[in-house]
This record gives sequence, structure tokens and C-alpha cells, in this order.
Amino acid sequence: MDQENMSKYDKLTTNAVGRIVPQVFNGKDAVPFLGVGKFKPTGRKHGPPIVSVADYPEDGNKIVPSLKDALIRAGIADGMTISTHHHFRNGDLVGNQIFDAAAELGIKNLTWMPSASFDCHSPMIKYLENGVIHHIEGSMNGALGRFTSEGKMAGLGVLRSHGGRYQAIQDGDVHIDIAVIAAPTADCFGNATGDRGPAACGLLGFALADSQYADKVIVVTDNLVPFPCVPWQIQGNYVDFVVLMDKVGIPEKIISGTTEITKSPDRLLLAEMTAQFCQETGIVHDGFSFQAGAGGTALSIGIYFAEMLRRQGMKARFARGGSNKYLVKMLEDGLVDYILDGQTFDLDGVRSMRENPNHLNTSPFTSYNYHGKGNFAQFVDVVILGATEVDVNFNANVVTHSDGYLLHGIGGWMNCLLSKCVILPIPLFRDRMPVIRDEVTTICGPGELIDVIVTERGIAINPLRTDLIDKMKGSSLPIKTIHQLKAEAEKICGKPQKPRLTDEVVAVIKWVDGTVIDSVFRIDK
Amino acid sequence: MDQENMSKYDKLTTNAVGRIVPQVFNGKDAVPFLGVGKFKPTGRKHGPPIVSVADYPEDGNKIVPSLKDALIRAGIADGMTISTHHHFRNGDLVGNQIFDAAAELGIKNLTWMPSASFDCHSPMIKYLENGVIHHIEGSMNGALGRFTSEGKMAGLGVLRSHGGRYQAIQDGDVHIDIAVIAAPTADCFGNATGDRGPAACGLLGFALADSQYADKVIVVTDNLVPFPCVPWQIQGNYVDFVVLMDKVGIPEKIISGTTEITKSPDRLLLAEMTAQFCQETGIVHDGFSFQAGAGGTALSIGIYFAEMLRRQGMKARFARGGSNKYLVKMLEDGLVDYILDGQTFDLDGVRSMRENPNHLNTSPFTSYNYHGKGNFAQFVDVVILGATEVDVNFNANVVTHSDGYLLHGIGGWMNCLLSKCVILPIPLFRDRMPVIRDEVTTICGPGELIDVIVTERGIAINPLRTDLIDKMKGSSLPIKTIHQLKAEAEKICGKPQKPRLTDEVVAVIKWVDGTVIDSVFRIDK
Repeated sequence: MDQENMSKYDKLTTNAVGRIVPQVFNGKDAVPFLGVGKFKPTGRKHGPPIVSVADYPEDGNKIVPSLKDALIRAGIADGMTISTHHHFRNGDLVGNQIFDAAAELGIKNLTWMPSASFDCHSPMIKYLENGVIHHIEGSMNGALGRFTSEGKMAGLGVLRSHGGRYQAIQDGDVHIDIAVIAAPTADCFGNATGDRGPAACGLLGFALADSQYADKVIVVTDNLVPFPCVPWQIQGNYVDFVVLMDKVGIPEKIISGTTEITKSPDRLLLAEMTAQFCQETGIVHDGFSFQAGAGGTALSIGIYFAEMLRRQGMKARFARGGSNKYLVKMLEDGLVDYILDGQTFDLDGVRSMRENPNHLNTSPFTSYNYHGKGNFAQFVDVVILGATEVDVNFNANVVTHSDGYLLHGIGGWMNCLLSKCVILPIPLFRDRMPVIRDEVTTICGPGELIDVIVTERGIAINPLRTDLIDKMKGSSLPIKTIHQLKAEAEKICGKPQKPRLTDEVVAVIKWVDGTVIDSVFRIDK
Repeated sequence: MDQENMSKYDKLTTNAVGRIVPQVFNGKDAVPFLGVGKFKPTGRKHGPPIVSVADYPEDGNKIVPSLKDALIRAGIADGMTISTHHHFRNGDLVGNQIFDAAAELGIKNLTWMPSASFDCHSPMIKYLENGVIHHIEGSMNGALGRFTSEGKMAGLGVLRSHGGRYQAIQDGDVHIDIAVIAAPTADCFGNATGDRGPAACGLLGFALADSQYADKVIVVTDNLVPFPCVPWQIQGNYVDFVVLMDKVGIPEKIISGTTEITKSPDRLLLAEMTAQFCQETGIVHDGFSFQAGAGGTALSIGIYFAEMLRRQGMKARFARGGSNKYLVKMLEDGLVDYILDGQTFDLDGVRSMRENPNHLNTSPFTSYNYHGKGNFAQFVDVVILGATEVDVNFNANVVTHSDGYLLHGIGGWMNCLLSKCVILPIPLFRDRMPVIRDEVTTICGPGELIDVIVTERGIAINPLRTDLIDKMKGSSLPIKTIHQLKAEAEKICGKPQKPRLTDEVVAVIKWVDGTVIDSVFRIDK
């Protein structure tokens, strides 16, 4: 595709949530968001090329001398899409090397499709500037998001949820030419696992779609074991080449920063109120299920849940992770039957995944893919999520800050909205900036899917959830309307400024079904 | 497809092994066998329809009242292809019910695509006779094979190996409209496992392709558990409907008949000679791997291997199963690191698969698919297989008897030929009928892939394997040429009659790459 000469985007329209979005970008057509569950996909899933065992090494050994060599054998060429996963988070040592090699080979106009990018990928900025990389399809945290917000990327950024990424690859919305899967342990055939090895990260589920659907798949490891590598989280039958290198990740940076429960009294209050809400509404019951993220508040809520279960002699059926030591302790204490894990956030999570058969390896396919015959998110009784902003219609934002800067990825956030009850425990204001607004800067989640906002000064229940409103009648918890909460915040902080943005689109946000729910606009500096 | 009015087959030609095969049958084109590794596939894997979570039950519960109801919801119609798996072997209670329901609904001209069929499926003969079923694509053991051999099936029978079946479904050579997956345990979402429940059969790998590629997937179970059913050998994300019935299989018939080591002195001699051959050639070494089938001779060879390893303080890296109590004991005794299991043959196999994390669930995709980027069969140092006939060019037959009757399926036999050394321990004659012939009745395996024939009167090494011939120089084992063995048999039994066959093709044998390696001809009665 001649990405260089095509217009960044075209055919702006207003979608079902009133947002201005392009219908053409990066040379492809897109459908504007039509409303939850309204878009009906047609056609067939992407079929990767049929290959033959006869064209692969007779002894099954796919090791090649270097990453650069593997990229050449995989046929790297201008305009291709190269994908990576982010299980090493800010400790990834492989991503940059791919594009270093591409640059050395004089390749231009690549699309980089990470499952997420981090500050460690800031070196990519030079390749975005010099044309090696045309644009990023994937979450952009920190520096890359800032770069995009300032309108410096040649193409349009495309942000998807974890499930949306699986959907896009499965449906052929994005065609991956070469997937590079960094693996903590692998064998010469390409079977790979994340649960062991010096750079153990737990699992490799974010790379599942890449392995299944990319034309060529390269596994990169620093820990080669004799066939078979068990478990084969990534199946060698999908893999073309295996590369051995000294070090694929920095273990101490692989583990997420936010693995301790909060010590902030305000955050602890949010956690306690949320837990009490779940107790009073009967959400916490024998056999219930929950998902809580890795933030300090969410971790604390997990601890409250554990206490409630223990006290009442009950047990959760499963917890969805991001796993961490607190969740692992619940599993080991018999307070939950299963952890259904999508990514491990600390070493206890990695150990448990390796050793405990009830700590289960899940993927965006099982848990989040909206273009499947259902997914696991539907079974979760309650999810506790964060947001940068919420508006009076319960729409929420997780990607931009109130100053308009794109600074966060979507992760599984959007996909979790499919769960039975979605609660956002958020502070009423951050740095004297109210979090509840008339309108969010960027819509990532339509209000109809967000049930409860818990703030330190009160809880707002979405008027659509009359069942929850009824259950909370007579509660000692401060139930308020979202307008009341917004007014309280503004009384303290004043009416917030709108972000200073131009009308130039720099990125789009894809809903779980592949439609475009919102645009990110260039900062007006 | 109007199967009723099309010709059974057309365009006969002679393929690369000199066999007459049709290039058109059941309304589709086919490629004649071109030689091992010669056929280069083109095109893309089959893409099943893209679906949306919005069109599935919001609570994830896919239970419908009955199998018939599920078939109606799946849109059953004339000319469709319906697939089943054979993990229940001769104890399957679901297969016949599907076609009973189809018959009640007045459906005609179905293609039945079992992974194998057994005597318990003899009731299908009435549906083959009255037009409910047009033809069978899949192995036909016993009565159904006899029916086919006598030219009574409306369409042409199509036999494939386990790996060939995966290949055909993956590549879209066969399009499955409805897959029915009988499962010993499942949840309401369709996650299913074979390793537990009243009809436990171990695993469900033969149904993997069906789940991934069929338009509609029905899971039938007699043991419903709360979500999540763990392990999810079949993933509910591929499943459309779940049916609960009283009993899906007869446990005592699920287990294979041949699970005891042989007591026949002749067979024990074959086993001993084979094991000694593997010892003398160095095939048995620390870290080696093997696959032995479920027959009494093969089981006995496994016991010899275990003894050798124990005596020499060595360990096998893995054994490929069909698992059974002998293989499980090796695993539990620390004589093998892993069992890579494709189907469990007895209750010890089922227990071990359920409880031992080193007893691994494999599938035709991981182990046998020739249109993958390699497969596990390539790693196996030695496979011990059977055959109904072998010829002087080492070609072998597993589907027809020397009287011409089609009586056996191919199973994984063809796929195992990819292993590093293929040994066939076979008696020199059966019922005074020599097993080594000038020409086999049906070629299932080209001679170039078959390395060693072990008979009670001598061992013939394929002249292509000069390495093995060299290693056996000076051995005490009776190394002979295949012609010598043939002459010895004929001296005792006389020159065998050729089978009395017509020139009418009744079935075809597909090679692992989807090309047609041979035809089965109608018996001349």
C-alpha cells in the first residue's frame, strides 16, 4: 500500500454518540459507531495462507541466526504491518530491535501494531519521524501518545481494546504481515510460553491472534528448551522462525508498578464504599465473579471482597485477572475456584500460573472478542474499572486527559463493559480538576454500559439500572445523582476549562465491534 | 449442492504411484497424488462466518431443549455436511441421534463427516439407503466399510487420516455446515472437556477443527457444570448451542478393546525383535521419543522400551499416545517426561490426562496437520505401526483386506509416516494369507516413508535407509530383504490370489496433503 501518498483521513461524519469521526483513514474504509450491538458484521474471518510442512525444516528446527535474518526471510518490505505484544510492558527489549533492523534494511512506511506501547518504546519516535514507521495501530502510553497528540505522526493512530485487537485481526480489518512474539521460553519448533524463564511474564495471550492470523510469525526467546516447550501457550505450528537472543526483557520492569494496595485514605474510602455497595446489592454472593484491575484502589477492593467471603463462609467461582499476589492468595486460601488470567502483574501471579492448574491462561479470544459466539466477560458479575473522565450521561474516557493529551491505552477496559455490573470508583477531582464533566474529551465507553460511579463524596447509579437503585434504597451509603456529584466538584474546583484542541484528527478510537466511536484531536499549542 | 443428480466420480487418471484415481467426485475437483511433498497448496485457509456477541444470549447461556431443536436452529437443510468425532469409539450414543432427527425432519442428501465410524453406527446404513445420508467422508470401520465396498453408497466414500481431516477442514476442501460435538462435561457456554464426567473419554482433539471451522457448532453433554468448565478442551467461544441429554456414551465401550499386552508367542517375538532393533540402531537413547499404537504388539514394545530405559538409567523425552496404563506407568515412574496424547485408550489414560500436568492434550492440528508450519510427528524418533499388507516396494495398506474389503480407518497412521523411523511389525502371514505382496490392494503409505518391516522370520530394511542397514551389520537379528521375506511366506502359503474387484470406484484415499493416493474398488461378488 502506498501509505506515503494517501491522505491521513477523509469523510468526516457524526456517529451515534454525536462524535465526529473519519470514515476513511490510513487508506482504509471504516464504519462509524452505530450504537451498542447495532453493527452486524458480514463476511468471513481472515484466512491466512495455506502452507505445507514440505516447505519447513524436516527436523522441525526453525532457528535462524538473528532477528534481522528472520525479518529478511519473512520477506519484510515497505508498507508492511508488523505486530508485537506487550506482556513485557516497560521491560520489553525486542520491539525496538525490530525497527532498528528494519531501518538498517532501508524499509519505509511500516505500520506497527503493538498490543500496547510503553515509554521504553520512545526510541520509535525517530522511526516515526524518518518514515520507517508510518503509524501505530495500538495503544500509545506516555511519550508516543504525546507525539501523536501533537500531530506529528504521518498516519492516523488507531486505538483498540484488547478484544477489539483480536476482532480486527480475526476479521481481516488489519492484515499482519509479520508478527514478532518475544517469549520467555521456547523450543526450536516455536512452541512458546510466558510462565517460565529469566524474563517470565506469565502468559502470552496478547500474541494469540498474531500467531493465528499473521502471514509470518517469528518467535524470539532467551531461553531455549528441548522440544516440547510445555505449556505451548503459543503453538509452534503457527511459527515460521525462531530467534535466540541474550535477553528479551528486563525482569524487574516486566512487573507492573502498581502492585501494592493503596495507602491513600481517599482511595481506601473509594474501595470500601465500592465493596459495601457490592455487598448491599447482593453482587457479592456465593459463586459470584469479579474483575478488578491492577490499580491500588482496585486491589484494595479485592481485599475487601476476600474478607467478605471469608466472613460469610462463601466462595467466588472465578476472578478475572490481571493477577497479582492478592488474587493468588484468594485462590490459595480457597476463596475463589479459578483465576481466569489475561495478564500477570507480579511474580506471584507468574508462579501461580505456572504451578496452579486452577490459575487459567485466557486470551482476548476467550475473554473479550466481540466477534465470537459470546465471550467470558459476559459471565463476570462485577468489574471495577478506572477512568480519566466521566460525563453526566455516564460516558467514560480512559485514553485522553482533560487537557486533551492522548496518554493511555484502552486495554481490556472497553471489553469489560460487557460484564453484568460496571463500577468506576474515581476521585471527584484530580489536581483540582473535576473528573465528572458535561462531556468527556473522548468517549471510550457509552454511558448505557456504565452502571455505577463511586466517588469519595457519593455514589451515582445509572438511571437505567433501576434494579440497583431499588436495592440501594435505605442504604447508609451516600447515593446521589451524577449531576449532584458534578455540582459538588465544581463548587470546590470551579467549572473546568475545555481542552484546547484543533479540529485535526490525529487518532481514532475503535469500539469493540470495529466501528469508530471517537476521534482524538490535535492539541492546540 | 444437488448431490442427488451428480455423477459419483469422473476423469480417472493415473497418479504418481501408478494408481487409478478420479479427479472429480461428489461434485468436487481433486488433485491426484503427486509424490511425497510435491503438492504445493495455494490460497488461504477457510474463514468461517464472522459473528457478533450481540446475536448470542446476553447471559452466555446457550442451552436449547433438544438435539433436534439445536439442528433446526442451526439451519439444517438438504445437502449439508454434518460432522462428528469418534472419541467415544464404539460407545457413541449421539451420532445416530443426529441422523434420526434429520430423518424425522425429512432432510436428504447429507454428507456425514465423522472423524471415524464404528459398528455402533451401523444404523446409519438405513439412512444411506433411503437418501438421508448421501455419503460418508471419514473412516469406515466394519459394517459401513462393507456397505461401501459393495457399491451401495450413493456418493463416493472419502477416507482421510486424522491430520488429513484437519487439513481438509482448515483448507476448506470440506465445508462443515454443522458440527455436533458430544462432550463428557460442558458448561452452558459450550466450553467442553473429555477428561471427566460419566462418559469421560480423555480428550476431544478430533473435534478441534470442527469447532474452529464449522458454520454452526452444537455441544451435546450429559454432565453440565457451572461456568467455567475447566479445562476447556473445546472453547465455548466457537459454540452456538448446548444440548443436555441423559447419556452421551457407554463408558465400558468407550475404552478400546485392545488394551492388554499380547500373550501370543508370535506377537511377543515381533515385539522383542522390534525393541532389539531400536536398541541396536541407537534409536533408543537418552531423550528419545516414540509412538506405539494400541495393539497388543505395540503395547508390548512399549514395555520393552521401558525396561531398556530403566536398565540403562535413561529417560524418554516424550511418548506420543494413544495413551494407556502402560504409558501412564512410564510417566509416573519417571521414564518419560511427557505423554503427548491424541486419544486415551483406557481409564488410566483418562485419569492421567485429568490429573498429571505432564500428560498433554494434543490434537490433529499440533501433531499431524500437513498444511501447518511443521507438526509434532516430525519430532518422533520411532513409530510402531500396523498394516494389513505391505508390498515389495515397502508401500503399505491399512484400509482394505487382501480380499478387497474396506474394513478399517486410516487414523493417524499416514501422519505418523513423517516420523524419523517408521517400523511395521507384522506377521508374515495371516490365516495362511501372505502379508507381503507384489502390490498392495490399496496404497495408504508410499514405500519411501516406511523404513523397516519386522516379521517373525526376519527384518527387512528399506534400501533407502542405508544408515540403518549399516548400523545393523553384524547384528544377531535376522536381517533379510523384503523379497526374501515374501518368498518365505509364499513357500509356506503359496502365491496369494488377487482380490476380485470391479473397476468401479467406491471410495478414495486422501494423502496427508489432500491429494488422492488411491481408490477403493467395488467388490466383484
